[in-house]
Amino acid sequence: MDTKKVVAGVDVGGTHTKIGFADKDGNIFSERTLLTRDYKVFDEFIKALSATIEQMKNNIAGIELVGIGVGAPNGNYYKGTIAFAPNLPWEEHLQFVDKLKAFYPSIPIILTNDANAAAIGEMVYGGAKGMKDFLLVTLGTGLGSGFVANGKMIYGHDSFAGELGHVIVERNGRQCGCGRKGCLETYVSATGICRTVFELLANTTYPSAFRDKEFSKIESKDIAKAAEEGDKIAQEAFEITGRMLGEALADAVTITSPETIFLFGGLAKAGKLIMEPTKKAMEENMLNIWKNKIKLQFSELQDKDVAVLGAAALAWETI
Amino acid sequence: MDTKKVVAGVDVGGTHTKIGFADKDGNIFSERTLLTRDYKVFDEFIKALSATIEQMKNNIAGIELVGIGVGAPNGNYYKGTIAFAPNLPWEEHLQFVDKLKAFYPSIPIILTNDANAAAIGEMVYGGAKGMKDFLLVTLGTGLGSGFVANGKMIYGHDSFAGELGHVIVERNGRQCGCGRKGCLETYVSATGICRTVFELLANTTYPSAFRDKEFSKIESKDIAKAAEEGDKIAQEAFEITGRMLGEALADAVTITSPETIFLFGGLAKAGKLIMEPTKKAMEENMLNIWKNKIKLQFSELQDKDVAVLGAAALAWETI
Repeated sequence: MDTKKVVAGVDVGGTHTKIGFADKDGNIFSERTLLTRDYKVFDEFIKALSATIEQMKNNIAGIELVGIGVGAPNGNYYKGTIAFAPNLPWEEHLQFVDKLKAFYPSIPIILTNDANAAAIGEMVYGGAKGMKDFLLVTLGTGLGSGFVANGKMIYGHDSFAGELGHVIVERNGRQCGCGRKGCLETYVSATGICRTVFELLANTTYPSAFRDKEFSKIESKDIAKAAEEGDKIAQEAFEITGRMLGEALADAVTITSPETIFLFGGLAKAGKLIMEPTKKAMEENMLNIWKNKIKLQFSELQDKDVAVLGAAALAWETI
Repeated sequence: MDTKKVVAGVDVGGTHTKIGFADKDGNIFSERTLLTRDYKVFDEFIKALSATIEQMKNNIAGIELVGIGVGAPNGNYYKGTIAFAPNLPWEEHLQFVDKLKAFYPSIPIILTNDANAAAIGEMVYGGAKGMKDFLLVTLGTGLGSGFVANGKMIYGHDSFAGELGHVIVERNGRQCGCGRKGCLETYVSATGICRTVFELLANTTYPSAFRDKEFSKIESKDIAKAAEEGDKIAQEAFEITGRMLGEALADAVTITSPETIFLFGGLAKAGKLIMEPTKKAMEENMLNIWKNKIKLQFSELQDKDVAVLGAAALAWETI
């Protein structure tokens, strides 16, 4: 019997680390989860990860593992390292690929950050199949992005390219976790829209369900729900968030001229609440040559296990 | 005798069209100029261009013409066309490469816009030799840019990428030739700094040489000269221009993470008057991971005939 070639896609998160085996068509064969924080020492985590991969291999007949792709916060594609990832429980510099290579010396192991992995997932398995120039924006706790040009991920000279969330859209604007002020992600992200709701509570007198809630307990999906139910503050928060995202996308287009921009992540689940104002502001601010020419759509992998698929795609892209 | 391989670099401008033969090392063998406006019909221009190239070939013994590179305003790399170039005297759509191909059917002819040609010139002959990720900014009448990532020019899906001059840096700011408001090039360009001088004349009461000059007659080099002579308005205009450029570069870095940013063009000739405030603002606004890590320097081709060399480099890059 012929063996089926698969890669392991590994999504390293602060809480869960997911591992999936995927073939070239994006079929996931087996999936497992590790609790990241169960491992106090990084070496133990790597040992558990390779043990899990081994178990998965042994449980499925007729497969051959030909590569491992890893998506991780602050992952460095060139070095195979993770540096200063605030949500991971280990030391500041992790030699991820080198340590895992000790267990898998003869297959390629590739690592990148989560947003890049999602973009490669879109390119290999999703709506960007066959596209040479596109942009994927992830709207999660922060705002991540992966730019692809000439069919290749733009990693930049140091692997840190694609930090669209840290374009400054408001000089002296909101304080950002990066230490500066006015970064796009302080407005446009799951956290950003919560900040906008509270700014609107302060600046307006509209009645709103959010007048009776604690700042620390609001999530972006509550805002989407309230907006759908007619809460004026929630609706305005989506309008503002979309406008700022649309303006930023029109600017980003001037640099890489993507064929399509994909939106992905928690906030993208708000559907037309976020899509409509984003599209409107993007077109209003677009340079003439691109008006009504750049597609804006949700990721086609939205409901699948993108993080694992993206990591798997990264391995397939290399093989 | 062995023949020496050369390419023709053609720089199409509104006033002059320059043609130079260059070898792979950037030595220019022969140079000629056509007066662009002498040719009322585009076909006549192409005929004159090919006749000139033929004369140049015949005048130098032992060379072989192996390609032609063309830099032109609004040049489209994918299509080999020029569209809506406001300074060229012919129709709106020019089938440049196809028409020239009729005279040179068997060698590659490649066309791109001026800023991309300058960037490729820097990569093949200048300070970006061997670099995979860099950015070149041309500060002329407008602000042009060429982004290179993974060793390749970013043309985008339609060849129009790299319009950094049309990132909006001031919502509802200065009217731009593109029909929108607040584009970077309305502030940061030879024209932009003249506008800033007049804004300062309006907003301040400093004495200045420019209080006795007509707006339409001021050139950026006059402002540089005045700044060197202590004119406070001229000095402040450079401070403002540099600050806005530095802020925009810090934002651009987040997208492509270039190893080096090269400044080029008329305004770059102002030397440290423009370099110092640009560098200062760029570093002040830079995300931590890039602080003091991205080189900012003038083009190393500044004093050579870059437009012709860039066009020649474009041909060499393809061959």
